[in-house]
Amino acid sequence: MARRRTVDEHAARIAALVGPSLNQRDAEIVPLAAALGRVLVEPVVTAGPLPPFRNAQMDGYAARHADVRRTPVVLPVDGVQPAGPAVRTTLEAGHLLKVMTGAPVPEGADCVVPVEQTAEEEGGVRVLRTVEPGAFVREAGSDALPGTVVVPAFTHLAPRHLAAAAAAGVAEVAVRRRPRVAVIATGAEVVPPGAPLELGQVHDVNGIALSALAAEAGAEIVLVDLTPDDPAAFERCLERAVAESDLVLTAGGVSKGDFEVVRQVLEPLGADVTEIAMQPGGPQGFASVRGVPVVCLPGNPVSAQVSFTVFLRPLLRAAVGLPPVAPQVLPLAAALHSPKGKRQWLRGVVKHGSVYPVGGPGSHLVVAMAGADALIDVPAETDFVAAGSSVSVLPL
Amino acid sequence: MARRRTVDEHAARIAALVGPSLNQRDAEIVPLAAALGRVLVEPVVTAGPLPPFRNAQMDGYAARHADVRRTPVVLPVDGVQPAGPAVRTTLEAGHLLKVMTGAPVPEGADCVVPVEQTAEEEGGVRVLRTVEPGAFVREAGSDALPGTVVVPAFTHLAPRHLAAAAAAGVAEVAVRRRPRVAVIATGAEVVPPGAPLELGQVHDVNGIALSALAAEAGAEIVLVDLTPDDPAAFERCLERAVAESDLVLTAGGVSKGDFEVVRQVLEPLGADVTEIAMQPGGPQGFASVRGVPVVCLPGNPVSAQVSFTVFLRPLLRAAVGLPPVAPQVLPLAAALHSPKGKRQWLRGVVKHGSVYPVGGPGSHLVVAMAGADALIDVPAETDFVAAGSSVSVLPL
Repeated sequence: MARRRTVDEHAARIAALVGPSLNQRDAEIVPLAAALGRVLVEPVVTAGPLPPFRNAQMDGYAARHADVRRTPVVLPVDGVQPAGPAVRTTLEAGHLLKVMTGAPVPEGADCVVPVEQTAEEEGGVRVLRTVEPGAFVREAGSDALPGTVVVPAFTHLAPRHLAAAAAAGVAEVAVRRRPRVAVIATGAEVVPPGAPLELGQVHDVNGIALSALAAEAGAEIVLVDLTPDDPAAFERCLERAVAESDLVLTAGGVSKGDFEVVRQVLEPLGADVTEIAMQPGGPQGFASVRGVPVVCLPGNPVSAQVSFTVFLRPLLRAAVGLPPVAPQVLPLAAALHSPKGKRQWLRGVVKHGSVYPVGGPGSHLVVAMAGADALIDVPAETDFVAAGSSVSVLPL
Repeated sequence: MARRRTVDEHAARIAALVGPSLNQRDAEIVPLAAALGRVLVEPVVTAGPLPPFRNAQMDGYAARHADVRRTPVVLPVDGVQPAGPAVRTTLEAGHLLKVMTGAPVPEGADCVVPVEQTAEEEGGVRVLRTVEPGAFVREAGSDALPGTVVVPAFTHLAPRHLAAAAAAGVAEVAVRRRPRVAVIATGAEVVPPGAPLELGQVHDVNGIALSALAAEAGAEIVLVDLTPDDPAAFERCLERAVAESDLVLTAGGVSKGDFEVVRQVLEPLGADVTEIAMQPGGPQGFASVRGVPVVCLPGNPVSAQVSFTVFLRPLLRAAVGLPPVAPQVLPLAAALHSPKGKRQWLRGVVKHGSVYPVGGPGSHLVVAMAGADALIDVPAETDFVAAGSSVSVLPL
């Protein structure tokens, strides 16, 4: 038998095909309220200083420091400055102005005496204790000077970044368009969710599983379709998918049976369909159709989910600025056997710092997979792993 | 000065007020494609077995094991069974049926011989090597028996759970309604995003920051409003917010100035507004208005973000089934000073396993906060932490 392609080799080819399409997306302008989780394309720069004007950090009295250096002292008060538009732009020498937190501090004043250090009395306010020069005054520009980048390009926008952009007076930002993904599930035996079954039929799992996996990795799902093993129907579906998306995922139709619709349609277009040395997920393929990458995943639902997780999740997450899901090295809670020659991705559950193998290796065990939360990565040359050994585990 | 309430005491009161409102939400029925990330209310149970019928795990020939025990042997082939509806329900003794992966295996057959172990020839197919009894046949119910819970109630739905539900023939699921959150920012000095500023005015930061924080924690944002320091306007806003939401967040208007709109309106309704021994975020409050919890956060934008993170993020995440954001204990990269008497939440950046304090303590430093990714939790009684000491760090 010809040497099978390894997981790493296939991953490199998929990355070379898919990466450029996912990363050369154009920008779109969205309001701040819609920008959470998106990747900023252009830096947000503040035109003016932040804060925009010097203002009070406490409720108290704006004063010239020279007038309150010696205390106690009683000074007249020229009114109240609430937060909001300035009622008075200059403070007369020997006077106070009552200021609320965030209120503009008038010219001339160079400190705020907190209200707790004062007492109202006939004819003015008694300052009981002095403060340092500059105390409780937030200078204009003390957070950011004009022209400062307040959110750098390529930031994955969290609430605090939107806050900084809002402070800078920005109402909308340029973010990367999310990658548009189309999913085409194939198979004569597959019927839509919830439809009644005849003998030989199963409900489609790949459409919902792959679209949910892609959405979780940051994609916008533009189309989820289901075609029987009919080349003409698959071709129509593919046309539409390629026209609307940055990446097309197909499920099924790539193994060695007599009715492999994805092979039949895509191999004449130059598809690379081959057996990968992995389990689940042996048969895999890819093609480029009118410049749009088409990644062909196996039809067994566990194989499809594992293949997406291994080959596509890292690329989509990177494209939208999500951190990679790093493999962990954990002790194996129970010994496992594994067939030699193919890298195994066994379902596991991580508990108390160990990983427990769960369910069987069968690629039809969809319910067993739902109970797992990790994939145990067993190298191709390994046929037995003793309990307590360290294994590499990929969180789902 | 009266003893200030501690962070933990205030957190317990907020939890007692907000928890019931967030957790007693009704269910809604959504299609599987809209259920990603939601919390399942009722278990998904499969009515029939999964897989629903015995089927082939490989492309090959369904056989009675007795007929292929001794090889090589040439047997006639009764046709091809693709995946899909059954073309033949019983296999005659001494015959083979070609089957594709996923195709129903007829009665009588008890193994599938992979196509690679056979050769076509005149009058039939030569089986070159035998297989074990039962080989490559997936029995009906081998993944789940009828009546099995395939996704337990209260599962936070990941793609693999939707896959299992789809396999079980379910097209829609009952999930908890997301908590509906309304945000009301207050302040005479605050203008909407992007509006031109006069002296004394600033752009609203709290509306976008709190709604983004709540959305990130799983809430549905039903209203984001901005009112000046005018009690009548705030009351109108509050009426609408209470009518539409499970939780109202206000920002500003709770400190000791002369124009504290939130205090003015809510204290007569029984609000608890007090000074918490924390920085940023001293003045805080809460009320229950027509049974809807109203949590009153301070108006300084850094204080508002920190207060949400400390008091509300854990409650919202728990209500929607997201895992808690656990504090980490990390070495402090550079010494820090901290005023005694108030628990400090200083902004920090985690890098190479240490946390670096960044920016100043000022609660107006919105841009500095955007550059942080964690809060350093400094106990109230601490006034100095040496470089290299272990500190508790709350990821943002």
